[in-house]
Amino acid sequence: MRHRFANRATVAVLALMIVFGPIFPAAGAGSLSHLRESAEVSPQSKAEEKWEELFRSLPQAERLKQYMQRLSAEPHHIGSAAGKRNAEWMRDQLKAWGLDAKLEEFDVLFPMPRERVLELISPEKYTARLKEPALAEDADSGDENQLPSYNAYSGDGDVTAPLVYVNYGIPADYEQLARMGVDVKGKIVIARYGASWRGIKPKVAYQHGAVGCLIYSDPKEDGYYQGDVYPKGPYRPDFGVQRGSVMDMPIHPGDPLTPGWGATKSARRLSREESKTLMKIPVLPISYGDALPLLKNLGGQVVPENWRGALPITYHIGGNENAKVRLKVLSDWKLHTLYNVVARIEGSTYPDEWVIRGNHHDAWVNGADDPVSGMVAVLEEARAFGELLKKGWRPKRTIIFCAWDGEEPGLLGSTEWVEQHAEELKQKAVAYINSDSTSKGTFGVGGSHTLEKFVNDVARSVNDPRGKGSLWEVMKARRGGQADNRADLRISALGSGSDYTAFIDHLGIASLNVGFGGEGGGGIYHSIYDSFAWYTRFSDTTFEYGRTLVQAAGTATMRLADARILPFEFTNFAETVGGYVDDVAKLPKQNVDLAPLRKAVEKLKQAADNYDRALNAILRTGSLPAETKELNKLLFQSERRLLSDAGLPRREWFKHQIYAPGFYTGYGVKTLPGVREALEQKDWTEAAEQVGVIVTALNAMSGQIESAALKLQSR
Amino acid sequence: MRHRFANRATVAVLALMIVFGPIFPAAGAGSLSHLRESAEVSPQSKAEEKWEELFRSLPQAERLKQYMQRLSAEPHHIGSAAGKRNAEWMRDQLKAWGLDAKLEEFDVLFPMPRERVLELISPEKYTARLKEPALAEDADSGDENQLPSYNAYSGDGDVTAPLVYVNYGIPADYEQLARMGVDVKGKIVIARYGASWRGIKPKVAYQHGAVGCLIYSDPKEDGYYQGDVYPKGPYRPDFGVQRGSVMDMPIHPGDPLTPGWGATKSARRLSREESKTLMKIPVLPISYGDALPLLKNLGGQVVPENWRGALPITYHIGGNENAKVRLKVLSDWKLHTLYNVVARIEGSTYPDEWVIRGNHHDAWVNGADDPVSGMVAVLEEARAFGELLKKGWRPKRTIIFCAWDGEEPGLLGSTEWVEQHAEELKQKAVAYINSDSTSKGTFGVGGSHTLEKFVNDVARSVNDPRGKGSLWEVMKARRGGQADNRADLRISALGSGSDYTAFIDHLGIASLNVGFGGEGGGGIYHSIYDSFAWYTRFSDTTFEYGRTLVQAAGTATMRLADARILPFEFTNFAETVGGYVDDVAKLPKQNVDLAPLRKAVEKLKQAADNYDRALNAILRTGSLPAETKELNKLLFQSERRLLSDAGLPRREWFKHQIYAPGFYTGYGVKTLPGVREALEQKDWTEAAEQVGVIVTALNAMSGQIESAALKLQSR
Repeated sequence: MRHRFANRATVAVLALMIVFGPIFPAAGAGSLSHLRESAEVSPQSKAEEKWEELFRSLPQAERLKQYMQRLSAEPHHIGSAAGKRNAEWMRDQLKAWGLDAKLEEFDVLFPMPRERVLELISPEKYTARLKEPALAEDADSGDENQLPSYNAYSGDGDVTAPLVYVNYGIPADYEQLARMGVDVKGKIVIARYGASWRGIKPKVAYQHGAVGCLIYSDPKEDGYYQGDVYPKGPYRPDFGVQRGSVMDMPIHPGDPLTPGWGATKSARRLSREESKTLMKIPVLPISYGDALPLLKNLGGQVVPENWRGALPITYHIGGNENAKVRLKVLSDWKLHTLYNVVARIEGSTYPDEWVIRGNHHDAWVNGADDPVSGMVAVLEEARAFGELLKKGWRPKRTIIFCAWDGEEPGLLGSTEWVEQHAEELKQKAVAYINSDSTSKGTFGVGGSHTLEKFVNDVARSVNDPRGKGSLWEVMKARRGGQADNRADLRISALGSGSDYTAFIDHLGIASLNVGFGGEGGGGIYHSIYDSFAWYTRFSDTTFEYGRTLVQAAGTATMRLADARILPFEFTNFAETVGGYVDDVAKLPKQNVDLAPLRKAVEKLKQAADNYDRALNAILRTGSLPAETKELNKLLFQSERRLLSDAGLPRREWFKHQIYAPGFYTGYGVKTLPGVREALEQKDWTEAAEQVGVIVTALNAMSGQIESAALKLQSR
Repeated sequence: MRHRFANRATVAVLALMIVFGPIFPAAGAGSLSHLRESAEVSPQSKAEEKWEELFRSLPQAERLKQYMQRLSAEPHHIGSAAGKRNAEWMRDQLKAWGLDAKLEEFDVLFPMPRERVLELISPEKYTARLKEPALAEDADSGDENQLPSYNAYSGDGDVTAPLVYVNYGIPADYEQLARMGVDVKGKIVIARYGASWRGIKPKVAYQHGAVGCLIYSDPKEDGYYQGDVYPKGPYRPDFGVQRGSVMDMPIHPGDPLTPGWGATKSARRLSREESKTLMKIPVLPISYGDALPLLKNLGGQVVPENWRGALPITYHIGGNENAKVRLKVLSDWKLHTLYNVVARIEGSTYPDEWVIRGNHHDAWVNGADDPVSGMVAVLEEARAFGELLKKGWRPKRTIIFCAWDGEEPGLLGSTEWVEQHAEELKQKAVAYINSDSTSKGTFGVGGSHTLEKFVNDVARSVNDPRGKGSLWEVMKARRGGQADNRADLRISALGSGSDYTAFIDHLGIASLNVGFGGEGGGGIYHSIYDSFAWYTRFSDTTFEYGRTLVQAAGTATMRLADARILPFEFTNFAETVGGYVDDVAKLPKQNVDLAPLRKAVEKLKQAADNYDRALNAILRTGSLPAETKELNKLLFQSERRLLSDAGLPRREWFKHQIYAPGFYTGYGVKTLPGVREALEQKDWTEAAEQVGVIVTALNAMSGQIESAALKLQSR
């Protein structure tokens, strides 16, 4: 849409006005870019704009609510009857709306607990409840078939040992313990949630010799300190528990028995002993109600101030014989069938170029927020596309909607699907757009920086549901003083924590993760209180943000599906990578020479500029290049160049050299991970090697961009 | 002592070596200065050094313990039989040690509570205990005749109103409440202790229309969040209460009915209505045990994060009709006789030059820490001087030891004594050295910056009790990175909160306040748990720091009493005042011109340099000026020049123009208070006027210093 060119630098604007005539400023207009559409000089351009506008008029908040009520009516974890019913219902809906929908199954290892025991043995006896009470105010909290509170992929074990409080249980906390002369060898640790992904805590505990690990929600971060607890307010009540996986996902996500290949029925499987992602020691998540009797009985030193939570006690380290606990966790270690829902709209012109849009459907319990709030947006997006199809619309490229199963235990559904279809995806996948839980507030985006300009423009085209201008304007206002003079708002880099992981990190498929947040408070994450009652009382109560998410993600999907020249651009990416190099350069690095990295970034910037100039030339002439298919393939496969076949050290499944979840942070992203993590671990040799690996990837990317620039110029 | 010249700048050292011969470096040596001693070129100099060393060998830790046991055996607040007995016992001891000791009485208004009621009326009923439980582990906690928990000088009243949580209850908190749309008019406020002196809280509440005020100890600042609570650890238990005065001491301390004159039996007295320092609304201090049922029933908005304490609740503002409390406080409003103990050692040469050393003896309850820990150091100092007297020592100047009564309710004993003897003190007082509660850790000093060099040298002469070098070295190490390259460690400016206030702020007598702290934790302040059992278990358990305090304060007293040229020096003072001007210049100040202040500081620096040069000349020649009496009078009366007769705006009793307790911080010091507080209140006219007042004072000081420099040069 031409009006989004408004506010360009004056000279450029004048040039454009000569080519395109008057420019129509609109709410949300704010930057240059959208060069892809500058190529849309054919008569269809106007028609496509109308389709897009029609699309954005279709989503209905009331439908989102109805889908949520249905999908969150029963506990529907992977392997549950309700989960399968949900998948079948979604498939049937998608079919009814005119999409080619089917289920796609994988058989994955998903342990459920057989036995869970936690007792304080001394100095007094306390048997942990390990059970969230049902609430009269929330009928779903009393549903049958709830998964008990546990950490999936915990080791089996029955251990009795002194208890040690380890704060968040991250490596820095063990350094502090060492300074205090405290050792966790042979002990059970208790860590509070926060500061890392949960799976890091037992992993680091195990590395330090602990024999068991408890993880609890401290009310400081997740309970009454934050606000009124459920059902009075949205925050975590005293016996609410955060379930969750402790699979070692920074090694690889997906089925622990089929790393790197699809877990089909007939697939080769590792033994559990061979798997690298199963936790070695028993781990159990507990409520602050259950943690209080344990923590208040700890002796030993008083903890440092920044280790103190909001329980009404003096926090002690423990570790002496006084406070001893027994922890027993046994799981059933069964395989379960997961049901991904996959629905296609075949592309009219480029059926072998796929735009993929997904969200998971499995929950730990009822999951109205996680994942249903995001899932229903995908469904409504698909329904709206069905409406467009009925009115004669057809996307140029193939659109694939996915509802993933088994995300919660370890991104199982998406990872197995990506692994199973890897060769085809490498060839065909244009981009993956993910969502997950969504709330209310500001539009949030993370993803590949080659799509940063693109997604900024999407945000300029969609209105904030509360009439505060475009999503982009609200984002900009929200960032306040942090906003620089850059035309585009920065998007965050992706770590892990949702289904984009296999797409971007394993296959190099450019990905985006979108959703709303920032205004809701919550403490029902992965508990039985994540219910329709909770969501409709405390989160996006009117589903107006949900409806806007449909508009935003759908607009992005349509534009990717229809663009004549795919909207990948590289100047922001090159600048961002340059910033990562600057960050890494601030770490202690002895003799590790980062100059080759800087040189590669310079090359990348040149290539990006060349592409930018070529695209601008297209814009000026108003005529498309001789052919675009090869050009577009170079563009959407450019992210593949950022992979290294060998993967990251000690975790070859992770092949992306720019983004990865941190080995010791879990979900949290580490950019330029090969070099950054080696420097953080003070492994200078490895850091130097990894500089070479990243340079190779960046140079390959530069080459691809230069090729794309040449293609653009071919007449 | 000459060896303290070591580490001078080399040239100066060589010069000194020529004059004095070899220099003997000693532990604790570290700066120049001590020019006063350079004047001690007479044969006595060596002898005096020996007396000083003998003095420091005399204090006995065991005696401190015995005095404490005796003085803290019973509750001994002002007006109590035990308080009078303590005064008499001290007088008798001092006499027995050879000092001329007597009691000096004043009759002052000291209200004790007749009735205290605090009830939560709705949404549920709770009657506050208002009573600290006795502990089996601490026999004194069950003593008879304890003052109940209350705030002395609370208004009488019986009010029932909605409750509002106001955080610390300082002006900034009411600004926050206004932003949140909350008004306290007609309501009862509950504030937590901290961020200001307690008396500020009801005063500011009253100014905002509140009809009652509760002050409670939140466990975040004063309870289990800090560490284990008594008797397990030293911190405040759930029903421990901080008593304390809420007299409006920033207006003036001392008897509310005799502002500015001594409260002798026959003195003129204001009516209570005429007094300006009585609180207008009922105020009551409560424990966190009693606060919890009130706070957890508050409705309304959730408080901002920095308003949250460590109680296991979501903190709400309240203010609606839901949570209503009744507060009733009635006092008996009687006059009581207070008993100061005053003991003299007549000076041999200058009997009309007085060095005054004091500590209060009254407590809120048993007061082993506050004030007995400091009081016993003064007693032991006096005993040691008695020993010296027996061995033939006599100070050149008169030394006066004081044990003040009635400090807790409002610095009553010291203020009335100062007011009663004002004219004589103006003429004769050389300096006042105060102590109060003392603990363990690092030597702490606040006071007049004209004595900064002096007290640095005292700290260099006394050894840390744990063998870590001199007190000065421990202080320096403790300050770590904060230490600049200055020869002397900075001392803090005095606000209020102990008995130096009338000396320095009302009469301009240079003062020091000394004690140990920083390593003890505590939560027994002003409670029944401030006992011998607590102190000997958790504070200065072996009294080694108490013994060191005797050595340090006694060394200072002896040096002041014997110096040929009094050790006032002005370069540090001038530099420090310059820093205060820089601080004030950072405040918003519209058109207020601070240039005259800067000019006055320049003049002051010149005068200080002139005096310094003159003193160095004396040092070089080794010969005293023709006469020193007039010189010394100019020196010790120099601090008087910093007063303005009219006093500070709205509080004429406070006459010092450099230091004052803050009008809205209470104990906390405000330097250059006339200008600083006017700027803070955005009263530009008053700020401009006050610039003139301070300039006048600084110029008078400069003149006095120039006169002293001239005297030094007279031969």
